Amino acid sequence: MAAAAGQHFFEGTEKLLEIWFTSSENDKSCDLRTIQRKDWEKLLKLVRCEIISFMKHEDMDSYVLSESSMFVTKNRFILKTCGTTTLLIAVKQLAQLVKKECGYDTIADIFYSRKNFSRPELQHYLHQSFDKEVDHLDQMFTNGAAYVLGRMNKDCWYLYTLENGRVEQPDQTLELLMWDMCRSKMEIFTRNQSIDGKDATKKSGICDIIPGIQIDDYLFDPCGYSMNGLLPGGYYITIHVTPEPHCSYVSFETNVPQASYQELLKKVLDVFKPGKFLMTVFANTASIAKDTHRHMEHLDTIEGYMRSDHQFCSLKNYYLTYTQFSRPVI
Amino acid sequence: MAAAAGQHFFEGTEKLLEIWFTSSENDKSCDLRTIQRKDWEKLLKLVRCEIISFMKHEDMDSYVLSESSMFVTKNRFILKTCGTTTLLIAVKQLAQLVKKECGYDTIADIFYSRKNFSRPELQHYLHQSFDKEVDHLDQMFTNGAAYVLGRMNKDCWYLYTLENGRVEQPDQTLELLMWDMCRSKMEIFTRNQSIDGKDATKKSGICDIIPGIQIDDYLFDPCGYSMNGLLPGGYYITIHVTPEPHCSYVSFETNVPQASYQELLKKVLDVFKPGKFLMTVFANTASIAKDTHRHMEHLDTIEGYMRSDHQFCSLKNYYLTYTQFSRPVI
Repeated sequence: MAAAAGQHFFEGTEKLLEIWFTSSENDKSCDLRTIQRKDWEKLLKLVRCEIISFMKHEDMDSYVLSESSMFVTKNRFILKTCGTTTLLIAVKQLAQLVKKECGYDTIADIFYSRKNFSRPELQHYLHQSFDKEVDHLDQMFTNGAAYVLGRMNKDCWYLYTLENGRVEQPDQTLELLMWDMCRSKMEIFTRNQSIDGKDATKKSGICDIIPGIQIDDYLFDPCGYSMNGLLPGGYYITIHVTPEPHCSYVSFETNVPQASYQELLKKVLDVFKPGKFLMTVFANTASIAKDTHRHMEHLDTIEGYMRSDHQFCSLKNYYLTYTQFSRPVI
Repeated sequence: MAAAAGQHFFEGTEKLLEIWFTSSENDKSCDLRTIQRKDWEKLLKLVRCEIISFMKHEDMDSYVLSESSMFVTKNRFILKTCGTTTLLIAVKQLAQLVKKECGYDTIADIFYSRKNFSRPELQHYLHQSFDKEVDHLDQMFTNGAAYVLGRMNKDCWYLYTLENGRVEQPDQTLELLMWDMCRSKMEIFTRNQSIDGKDATKKSGICDIIPGIQIDDYLFDPCGYSMNGLLPGGYYITIHVTPEPHCSYVSFETNVPQASYQELLKKVLDVFKPGKFLMTVFANTASIAKDTHRHMEHLDTIEGYMRSDHQFCSLKNYYLTYTQFSRPVI
């Protein structure tokens, strides 16, 4: 989608990096949360974003960033950044920092993913195409596997992971990437309609999607919204909203385990009313979400949306389901 | 795989085009087989290949080409060409020829597919990357959907099809693309070991893969092999062998319907003994092969091969299963 002349364009589409660390000597004392704030700030400077807010929970540290979010648990690091941030530039320094400060010497698995950008030409050279991103990652990893799901000439979603990844604890991630958003819903995420993050969280209905979460939310000026939510057991949700009508985009992500994500999907669609969305679900064999691809296989309509694509990918440790839906043009 | 200095390199990997035609006025008299040989020869000149041999069956015409094969039925055209042929250049002229000579005015569906080339830089500009091929096809079709299955940074397989494709009769296609072939098996497809096509077909065991087929086979000089096989009901098989050790490659393709392709797969593997292979199965909802993705989902080893990738893609009318296997390096 090209912005009209003179309109400010913002690339809401995030780059998402998840890395699982392990110690070759099985050192139980390693913990990513021992890394100091100043070290994170230095790392994030490479990515071209800053920490806005911090929240601590028993199992996880959560950071709202000037461009999206960061989550840190004992052995897993998640960094999600939008706009023209330069996420992949920091991977090498991250590995060095983690080795030096925490003692983790091995990357157990890596997941780098993103939707295709609306305006790739505005990105840093490294992020202008998935081919370039893959070249960069292939220089660091000998066993990287690069996939494209969806349609290369329309909307698609890229993934880079390790072919010999080995995360054994139950794990699942649901991501919903939504665009062509409902204008009136998007108005909530502007200073015209909401006073602050808390106000937007309530008015939009975000607070009711998953009850009982501890929320850190932020409303940007004049518009834009980010929230991190934490639940006991190391579970998180994160939502980011780019409300401008000419480049509207919302992302929803969670690792909350569910045997079926249909109810959650309906709740999120009801809050945001996108024109189009894609959904990805990663679930390893130990996860209760491992049959998601079976449930999704026959779900060719949901809440008035028609499915345009459904793909399933069996990775070494994970099942990955990719689905895209659109509201029919009347 | 780069050829050693001075060795002749041949790109065995084919470009495969399958087009289904229909008439907007439902004109039952349209038949692609009314196109004259001189017109096919003119079209194939654009692709840079020639007809070597012709075989007629009740439901299908079969052509062995200097670079692979062509099959023509009443409403379906299949062209498979290897080397540095320029297949996609001919699509526009094909549509014009078919309209003028047969009266078909509509393309019901199109499937253009290929594995990644070993040496894309040796191809015509149009075929040097899938992006370029997609650009070319997108100029002709407004509803094209482009997919990549497998790993973009290793071995992968590209597909371009129509999002609104509408082939309603039962249809299925199995393709096995094999490489890093067994040297002694490949020797059979040289003039050193075999006198002619018939001799190679017999010695290799190809004649036993599907009994009762009418075979048109050809052994090139000094090496290389092509065969087309026809069965009643409009069923075909086609095999092409590039035996040179530094660029060995074999393709097997058939539309013979099977509820499970496991036995056939074992037979083909036994004849050729590849080091690696990928398998694709297209099956529409009317086909008895429509559950192939379910059978393949749990088949992570077969005949000593280990699965590296398994993907499933639900297209508008077809289920598509992609699987890659390798023999473990001992």
